[in-house]
Amino acid sequence: MWGIIATWRMAHDGIVAAKEMLTKKATAGDALETTIKTVENYPFYKSVGYGGLPNEQGILEMDAAFMDGDTYKIGAVAGIVDVANPISVARKLSEEKFNSFRIGQGATEYAMLNGFEIKNMLTPRARKIWEKRVEEIAKSNLSPYDGHDTVGVVALDEHNSMAAGTSSSGLFMKKRGRVGDSPLSGSGFYVDSEIGGAAATGLGEDLMKGCLSYEIVRLMKEGMSPQAACDYAVYEFSDRLTKRYGKAGAFSLVALDKKGRWGVATNVEFTFSVATKDEEPAIYIANPGPNQTTVIEPITQEWLDAYEKRIKAPV
Amino acid sequence: MWGIIATWRMAHDGIVAAKEMLTKKATAGDALETTIKTVENYPFYKSVGYGGLPNEQGILEMDAAFMDGDTYKIGAVAGIVDVANPISVARKLSEEKFNSFRIGQGATEYAMLNGFEIKNMLTPRARKIWEKRVEEIAKSNLSPYDGHDTVGVVALDEHNSMAAGTSSSGLFMKKRGRVGDSPLSGSGFYVDSEIGGAAATGLGEDLMKGCLSYEIVRLMKEGMSPQAACDYAVYEFSDRLTKRYGKAGAFSLVALDKKGRWGVATNVEFTFSVATKDEEPAIYIANPGPNQTTVIEPITQEWLDAYEKRIKAPV
Repeated sequence: MWGIIATWRMAHDGIVAAKEMLTKKATAGDALETTIKTVENYPFYKSVGYGGLPNEQGILEMDAAFMDGDTYKIGAVAGIVDVANPISVARKLSEEKFNSFRIGQGATEYAMLNGFEIKNMLTPRARKIWEKRVEEIAKSNLSPYDGHDTVGVVALDEHNSMAAGTSSSGLFMKKRGRVGDSPLSGSGFYVDSEIGGAAATGLGEDLMKGCLSYEIVRLMKEGMSPQAACDYAVYEFSDRLTKRYGKAGAFSLVALDKKGRWGVATNVEFTFSVATKDEEPAIYIANPGPNQTTVIEPITQEWLDAYEKRIKAPV
Repeated sequence: MWGIIATWRMAHDGIVAAKEMLTKKATAGDALETTIKTVENYPFYKSVGYGGLPNEQGILEMDAAFMDGDTYKIGAVAGIVDVANPISVARKLSEEKFNSFRIGQGATEYAMLNGFEIKNMLTPRARKIWEKRVEEIAKSNLSPYDGHDTVGVVALDEHNSMAAGTSSSGLFMKKRGRVGDSPLSGSGFYVDSEIGGAAATGLGEDLMKGCLSYEIVRLMKEGMSPQAACDYAVYEFSDRLTKRYGKAGAFSLVALDKKGRWGVATNVEFTFSVATKDEEPAIYIANPGPNQTTVIEPITQEWLDAYEKRIKAPV
């Protein structure tokens, strides 16, 4: 069996590419890296990699992580700048026994020293969106924080190995140096090839309060299906956080187990893309349903057309 | 009931100060902050705050986190420099709904803007130790990484609130921007006032592979005592990591539950300090015992004398 699942519609082209690789016995790590690089490289996705939206100062600071489910090796970067593919840097770091999570200048230096592509990641379009937002905030005293769509991926290959990874430019208009859940083990991602894996997207400040990726993997270890594990972990925590903290930010989780079964849960409208040996790559839309369940439907052509129009609309 | 537990002998003076506060109904957050500040301020503890050992470049980059067990609020900093008390910055950040985890320059700027004390944290002694180490490594081709003793604290107050926190200068001779487990929720710390909390010290690169602080809190939620939860989580994971990754780095965890019961587990010799309403502040020494248990003994005067001599020995 093989399988791969990723957060958001933006991951779909990468999932299609990963399918081709996984049917030819590629490793989960390679398929995952290709999926995330595809998102990082596409200029119209404004929350990951090239074309991502910058922080308050107009600087695009990025976070990414990679985890190998066989060995638990983890590599992560936070606040990396000017690097084309943060996921590839994170994956390379996962090979280091020490110093495998690096931030800021240290992360960028590591990328440079190891020959990764250096690139100005701020597109003219992203700059325009940022300038407009700065104006709006000054005029209307709005809360600046809006949008935080991480690509989070879990992959299983024909060799029974699994990998998980994330990449994000974080909260739009974030303060310099802000880090979300994406590079944090257990919150943004977790994977164990003998069980399954999970990855997250949403308000990182709240996701790290719950360690939901770890919790979903743990529930699968106890025997829950990926869907049951996602439903239980996400809705129980969303309710508990509302009770204890006053409010739960938006968050959505995807999971895949070692048999290639998958699940998702979310407290907002949420799209994702998935493919397995038995299922062609497809985009779905998920919404919270009644009694701590998730309503999952195939995406409609209307939705896709509106999305395409929206991401390319003149600024 | 009140209680407070902290990693390493270095935390003891802070635990003694915290005891005075907790008997007078201070909050868990205040007692925890005082404990950690006491360690940060003491120049002879070479892995936390002032006098901490610097990175490869001779720069002292520090990590810290604070979590409120009532609300799950988390604040964290990584790679902060020139700030006297990283724990206080982390605690202040925990009040922010967004941008509550900040790294590098962004973390330091936040501290400056919010009036925290700016201080050159590199003592002449730490500089000498660093210079000596640079020479040794050049001469003998040694692995540079050595020493990573985080202060990790869990506190319970008479109002039934709990807090957890950490502070560390990380791995001695680390690469610029390296981050360990200390600022990572679920790995370095986790706390829920309705259950209990846990905090970690050890090789961060390995601790984040297991999310052990979260796991210990979860096991306590299922009804285990803090000692049983620590024993189960630490030894099971240490064995599993050895099997899957080839080797498990050193790590030690402390836990405290909402009733003031405590526990520790460790795969190396490990000291800690604890006080509760029923127990005077005391330092213990723990070692891994037979059959996934921990042997805990009161510290001896000989051990304390040798420690005192060691930390103040001429460089």
